[in-house]
Amino acid sequence: MPIDATNPRTDRRRFLRLGAALGGALTACKPTHPVEQPEPSSLGKPLSAYGERSPFEKVARLPAAVKNPEIGSSRTPLQDSYGILTPASLHFERHHSGVPRLDPAAHRLLLHGMVERPLILTLDDLRRLPTVSRIYFIECAGNSGSEWGPKTAPDAQKAHGLASCSEWTGVPLSILLAEAGVKPGASWIVAEGADACHMQRSIPLKKAMDDVLVAFGQNGEAIRPEQGYPMRLVIPGWEGNTNVKWLRRVKVVEQPYMTKDETSKYTDLLADGTARQFTFEMDAKSVITYPSGGQKLAGPGLCEITGLAWSGRGRIERVEVSADGGKSWQNARIDEPHLRMAFSRFRMPWKWDGQEASLESRCTDETGYVQPTREALIEARGTNSNYHNNCITTWKISPDGGVSNA
Amino acid sequence: MPIDATNPRTDRRRFLRLGAALGGALTACKPTHPVEQPEPSSLGKPLSAYGERSPFEKVARLPAAVKNPEIGSSRTPLQDSYGILTPASLHFERHHSGVPRLDPAAHRLLLHGMVERPLILTLDDLRRLPTVSRIYFIECAGNSGSEWGPKTAPDAQKAHGLASCSEWTGVPLSILLAEAGVKPGASWIVAEGADACHMQRSIPLKKAMDDVLVAFGQNGEAIRPEQGYPMRLVIPGWEGNTNVKWLRRVKVVEQPYMTKDETSKYTDLLADGTARQFTFEMDAKSVITYPSGGQKLAGPGLCEITGLAWSGRGRIERVEVSADGGKSWQNARIDEPHLRMAFSRFRMPWKWDGQEASLESRCTDETGYVQPTREALIEARGTNSNYHNNCITTWKISPDGGVSNA
Repeated sequence: MPIDATNPRTDRRRFLRLGAALGGALTACKPTHPVEQPEPSSLGKPLSAYGERSPFEKVARLPAAVKNPEIGSSRTPLQDSYGILTPASLHFERHHSGVPRLDPAAHRLLLHGMVERPLILTLDDLRRLPTVSRIYFIECAGNSGSEWGPKTAPDAQKAHGLASCSEWTGVPLSILLAEAGVKPGASWIVAEGADACHMQRSIPLKKAMDDVLVAFGQNGEAIRPEQGYPMRLVIPGWEGNTNVKWLRRVKVVEQPYMTKDETSKYTDLLADGTARQFTFEMDAKSVITYPSGGQKLAGPGLCEITGLAWSGRGRIERVEVSADGGKSWQNARIDEPHLRMAFSRFRMPWKWDGQEASLESRCTDETGYVQPTREALIEARGTNSNYHNNCITTWKISPDGGVSNA
Repeated sequence: MPIDATNPRTDRRRFLRLGAALGGALTACKPTHPVEQPEPSSLGKPLSAYGERSPFEKVARLPAAVKNPEIGSSRTPLQDSYGILTPASLHFERHHSGVPRLDPAAHRLLLHGMVERPLILTLDDLRRLPTVSRIYFIECAGNSGSEWGPKTAPDAQKAHGLASCSEWTGVPLSILLAEAGVKPGASWIVAEGADACHMQRSIPLKKAMDDVLVAFGQNGEAIRPEQGYPMRLVIPGWEGNTNVKWLRRVKVVEQPYMTKDETSKYTDLLADGTARQFTFEMDAKSVITYPSGGQKLAGPGLCEITGLAWSGRGRIERVEVSADGGKSWQNARIDEPHLRMAFSRFRMPWKWDGQEASLESRCTDETGYVQPTREALIEARGTNSNYHNNCITTWKISPDGGVSNA
């Protein structure tokens, strides 16, 4: 039975039942804890203008070992994530020529091509216009490329960390296009970034007129430099590379421009030698973040299985969890808010008996699409391409509590 | 007609209409913008482990000018907010003896008093338990104290900046209480922080068993030191001071303890000399964040009026905006997600004619409660107390575009 995530009281009652069912799981581990704790006795740190995290916190992005650190990616530590939001400091990176230093007062966005009235917009112009805030995930098309195998990645960060979720604030591109006046015959746009490589992607005009944002806010403050400061495209549900960062130009055109990043890259070579191109939508995917590869369970007993699910085609309707490698499944609870094209956080209490176990999650989105097994995905798409891998991940629990990618 | 915020398509269609209605507002200001922009030409910054904001961004909390900077508050820059989330770095502070430096591995939470099985919990214990993530505002009861007058604060930060909104992740306190086994006759809890002043508040058991969290996550990472690292109470909708930070002890008791912060402070002295005590719920409130005091409109024409609304009694059902000092009102659009006990972001396009104007917002929550005028609030409560001021704010626009608190 799906959880009614719109009613917080449902969760509360469920929790009360769970609470009663813990059955001494907590008290069982008490003897190892000292009963005395130090008394706080001196004044702490003063008020401050801009806070930092605790010096005890070491969670970090993992930059890829690349020849040039300006060209590559760094991954979000999903195994240490909480809730559905990714802190901007930990949002994954994928740069093609590094993070440009852009002065927002000098930056301009040019909207031209097949339009009646070309526009040149400052950040201040944008901020006067009708704006919207929305929580959306962004996922690199190359995320989980390791999972095609045969050697899969050891943990959630290395396997799936090219996905993050933020609250984005910006002006719908449809407003700017309406203001510029799109000419008949136009059917695509080409977006270009202000990085040295002039990153460019072609995007169908239909999507550009739908839900695309020219975003300047992220998680309540100005968008971060690594995520496109001072402005970027946010293209809900579509592969990360199309969400052009440091946006400087939108050209309205007749047809796609066949740029480097949509021909030599971000196409999916199939087993028969043909390639899929413009595979924009990210397929529904989920991953258990705890327990996940590289972590270790302290011992048998209660622990909460939790993870993230998302779909480029809308809302996640259901996440099922299996502890026996996919033989049996149970519906997980999904936290609210539970939104279209955003991370959904799922949770399921589990009592580990200390034996070997295989944990899997499988999500279904609002279109009815079900996340496939690795075998089914390879059967359909072969193994020639690294892109768009959304298969089920299996975390194997060893009797010693260790977790590895099966 | 209220906006259907559950359907993003509604917004899109609305935007397309707005887009068509901009009527050259953008092109009118074009001549001031240079058409040429510098070409990006060199590699930018490399990948990094933990990102920082742009050096061009200077938005900051405003610490109060106090004798001891460990004891006081700093305010969130609401006038520069985006969406509904407050970055953890900009979350307001209110400390009674500074921010303690707590080692999460050494920290313990004691749950004792009228319970069958006292518990001592580590952070690791908590993280094994069923957990929930929710977006909630926290507001200091002293927020907007300046607005009782006669001299009101000049801007949104100084007037209303003791309110912030985060995604909080933690274990429902109800689970811990169920595990400990509350004894008959208990009806309150007393929560204590690990700061040097041992900040303590009494909270009715009924609320503690309802939706209170022992939170360890904030906006996708570990809770920040200023907000209670490694764990705090989050008491949805209730005055900030009850959301005890650096939580070290929860005692189940028969009656409130009449601690310093619920007797000498955080009580509301009325005109007749009696005082309200335990006024936990924060009344519904809204404030326009743009345009707001201290800002300046660039010139006549289209600009979006936007702001925040929240209620300690549930969901904000409606926000109305007036540009004529409360004579006429129009419903604002509310962004999704649009949640109980969280900030709601409202927006309304406005065409400024260059004349003097008085902007106000007025919210209604799901209980039907309507945010009062300042006159109505003073009529009911007098002016003896600084706490729980939720009256309508009026921002006056001068013909030169300047904005001030009327």
